[in-house]
Amino acid sequence: MSPPPPPASPSTEELEADLSAATISKKQLNKEARKAAKAAKAGKKAEKFEAVEADPFAANYGYHEIQSKGISGRSWTDIGDLDEAAAGRSVLVRGFAERFRPVSNKMTFIVLRKKMSTVQCVLVANADAGVSTQMVRFATSLSRESVIDVEGVVSVPKEPLKSTTQQVEIQVRKVYCISRAIAALPFNLEDAVRSEAEFEKAEQDGEKLVRVCQDTGLNYRVVELRTATYQATFRIQSDVENIFREYLYSKSFIGVHTPKLISGSSEGGAAVFELQYHGQPACLAQSPQLYKQMCISGGFGHVFEVGSIFRAENSNTHRHLCEFTGLDAEMEINEHYFEVCDIIDGLFVAIFKHLNENCKNLLEIINKQYPFEPLKYLEKTLKITYEEGIQMLKDAGTEIEPMSDLNTEAEKKLGRLVKEKYGTEFFILYRYPLAVRPFYTMPCYEDPAYSNSFDVFIRGEEIISGAQRIHTHELLRKRAIECGIDTSTISSYIESFSYGVPPHGGFGVGLERVVMLFCGLNNIRKTSLFPRDPQRLTP
Amino acid sequence: MSPPPPPASPSTEELEADLSAATISKKQLNKEARKAAKAAKAGKKAEKFEAVEADPFAANYGYHEIQSKGISGRSWTDIGDLDEAAAGRSVLVRGFAERFRPVSNKMTFIVLRKKMSTVQCVLVANADAGVSTQMVRFATSLSRESVIDVEGVVSVPKEPLKSTTQQVEIQVRKVYCISRAIAALPFNLEDAVRSEAEFEKAEQDGEKLVRVCQDTGLNYRVVELRTATYQATFRIQSDVENIFREYLYSKSFIGVHTPKLISGSSEGGAAVFELQYHGQPACLAQSPQLYKQMCISGGFGHVFEVGSIFRAENSNTHRHLCEFTGLDAEMEINEHYFEVCDIIDGLFVAIFKHLNENCKNLLEIINKQYPFEPLKYLEKTLKITYEEGIQMLKDAGTEIEPMSDLNTEAEKKLGRLVKEKYGTEFFILYRYPLAVRPFYTMPCYEDPAYSNSFDVFIRGEEIISGAQRIHTHELLRKRAIECGIDTSTISSYIESFSYGVPPHGGFGVGLERVVMLFCGLNNIRKTSLFPRDPQRLTP
Repeated sequence: MSPPPPPASPSTEELEADLSAATISKKQLNKEARKAAKAAKAGKKAEKFEAVEADPFAANYGYHEIQSKGISGRSWTDIGDLDEAAAGRSVLVRGFAERFRPVSNKMTFIVLRKKMSTVQCVLVANADAGVSTQMVRFATSLSRESVIDVEGVVSVPKEPLKSTTQQVEIQVRKVYCISRAIAALPFNLEDAVRSEAEFEKAEQDGEKLVRVCQDTGLNYRVVELRTATYQATFRIQSDVENIFREYLYSKSFIGVHTPKLISGSSEGGAAVFELQYHGQPACLAQSPQLYKQMCISGGFGHVFEVGSIFRAENSNTHRHLCEFTGLDAEMEINEHYFEVCDIIDGLFVAIFKHLNENCKNLLEIINKQYPFEPLKYLEKTLKITYEEGIQMLKDAGTEIEPMSDLNTEAEKKLGRLVKEKYGTEFFILYRYPLAVRPFYTMPCYEDPAYSNSFDVFIRGEEIISGAQRIHTHELLRKRAIECGIDTSTISSYIESFSYGVPPHGGFGVGLERVVMLFCGLNNIRKTSLFPRDPQRLTP
Repeated sequence: MSPPPPPASPSTEELEADLSAATISKKQLNKEARKAAKAAKAGKKAEKFEAVEADPFAANYGYHEIQSKGISGRSWTDIGDLDEAAAGRSVLVRGFAERFRPVSNKMTFIVLRKKMSTVQCVLVANADAGVSTQMVRFATSLSRESVIDVEGVVSVPKEPLKSTTQQVEIQVRKVYCISRAIAALPFNLEDAVRSEAEFEKAEQDGEKLVRVCQDTGLNYRVVELRTATYQATFRIQSDVENIFREYLYSKSFIGVHTPKLISGSSEGGAAVFELQYHGQPACLAQSPQLYKQMCISGGFGHVFEVGSIFRAENSNTHRHLCEFTGLDAEMEINEHYFEVCDIIDGLFVAIFKHLNENCKNLLEIINKQYPFEPLKYLEKTLKITYEEGIQMLKDAGTEIEPMSDLNTEAEKKLGRLVKEKYGTEFFILYRYPLAVRPFYTMPCYEDPAYSNSFDVFIRGEEIISGAQRIHTHELLRKRAIECGIDTSTISSYIESFSYGVPPHGGFGVGLERVVMLFCGLNNIRKTSLFPRDPQRLTP
């Protein structure tokens, strides 16, 4: 079968937004959902109609049910792998139909998407190629986001393609719909990936662009997640976790899993989720703190855990979630908690380097919608004392109580001051007042008003907390009581320090926060797949 | 300073068990705890006494508080790294004092342990070496499991050492107690690592050995975890998770984290933990099933998750936990769910190979206490249909209802039959009756009484469940209703299939079960760090 001549390249590639309203309300969405149901019914009728219409090429298109009927031996090519080297080759690809652009009743374009890659498919009625006008009509009738299999020949267009990632086209021979999307999507993907700059430009031009507001995106999260920005974000998140694990593995840590259902609250003060556990009261762990320390008592030496963290606080901010993923580590120290800081130093520099070197394309995708400056960090992470931090703030005119914790505003300002003075947006602030740290924190040797503890900041926001822990049961019990904790709820924890426990320290960091702050994103809901905040338990 | 002559090797190395009772009851333990408190007080008095006693070598021993006072620049050697190559070298090691064997008031042995390695330290009063009789007395006064720093010179004994892993000794120059254990431990470590064979031999010899029963071990879990058997078990567990992740990464999967706090129950029937979430009813996810499928709808293609699984069932068996670690994967399939089976095949063969090749020493440690035969598996995993399985059972005389699920006994028997016939203890049983699978399972194309599903067995126990899933919202809703599920509680899940979803399948497996069955262990509590069953919420 000789390939048909490639069709003329279209003069404009960008599709107009289908919706003229500037925002989509829930009411509208419900209305559209009803419309969609109607459209789906109509679609079924259309399908029947197609089936009875006589077409010698009817086998080259239609609806395919994938139900494990058999194994054909055919192989699918990833859209992201399509390049000029494939020119002239026959390929089979599967993807979401991101856009349709019918040119005439004999020709249409379909942009297919897989993960972060898109390719333009060209359908031209041509008997030599086995493509009928009915096939073009069928393709045109499909709804956006339907999953489609396309067989065709790869061709290289004369002009570079602006609206797809792949710089080749597929001259379609066969097209099958694998999974139909409802006709009216909650929003179109191109409306969900616009940058603020685009909105501003449009406003200056007197245009009105559709804006997908945060709640709409979250309500229809699976659609929003299909955008390149989210695809890139969660690939970065997966990589951050991977480097976290690999780095700690290389330093003799082992991965552990500690219980999330516990009898006492793990951190004292903060709000916990309570439940009944086979007739006895239980809590969801607010951190693996107590149990990762018990792993040290258990002789494991160096442990890390990646697991769910639950916080019942009614915090409605850009940086709090009620459930998130904790990256925790705990380790024996020989003599000083700076050994923990050294691990953090090496670990985070490794993460930053990996992202900058191996995830360039992912970062660029995020940058396109949410522009950000690359994170400034030093090869050897800066450590400054809490006292020095306070002094820097005072010198810059901020009134601050020396023995209290920094508030968010002060942290932000300190971040700016440190960036100016030391040229880094990633630093460790250590030797916090004991009073602002949890009961299990080891007091300073030379001044018990301070503690062997630290916080780590990225772009002026605290992301890591860590410290040397108390490793003797007598002092631990004393400090717990002083901090007003009911020691009966954590007796097995305290007892575990009566069997001889090596001096140790550790830290915890939220995976979502690392990604948010590295990428300069403005909301933690952008880095949690299905975020949980006080208002949101679904989807 | 010239090293003193090495002391004569002792004729017997094994210490006698300190406790004569054959089992330890809780009452006894409480009694011992009170004794321990007394002993600790006495210890403090002793310490004061030591301090005032005149000794020119007083600086070479004593109690050291590790509180991040400074960084000395000294380096600690891992006990596991000590070998003959270190002979004559001065080393500094830290470890748990596993055993003390005072020989005279001028000489004592201490066996120090770090992770799975032990080394014998020899203390002989010798003014040339800076070792006083007071120092020997101090060392002898320390309690088992205290954490101790030893500085000394490595020597090679004439006779091989039977009671330590390392085949060198340390001629002690300095000894410091870093963390004191209470005098009366709940049990001694050597009593917690005995094999059944040892108990049987002792009984034949008329000896009575201390047996640490399951509940005692679990009540004082941090002590039990210090045994070599547990140290090895959880290192294996960490490796299994690592290979799971690495293998799937190599196959283009990304790691995700889905919410554990959800509005509806994730699996219908089974019991769930319920709680209040900011004023609305919520559940703990019984699996990431719905959300990992929503990741497929979200366009991620191939995802895996390692996370907590919560089951409120009142199951008191050797293989059920109320909280465990799920290894889950979900992936687009091109045409057949056997593509999922192929991933499982490659993944588990990779895990088994890694364990057999890279974890030999760990497996040997477990084998010593709990002997097991190496798992029999094939390079290409065997797949047989459910019908064939049923027929095999029938042929072997087991009465079985062809369209119902296999019970544990039938599974065990089928495992034996398959092992006899095919020479493997790891196989996939596929094409289960639809009625025994969850609502989201894709029915078979040619016979809707069956389903595109499978279970995977190790040593006659089911460990993995998997299937092709329904990917259209119409069929999904229909099946949910047929299975009696209140679709209003999972509406966001069902809706997520209305936006065009690629055909997909996946599987889930419990990390603890993989380790338990690979190592032929008899109870899942042996492979969960801090197990949660209907009776146990602490430690």
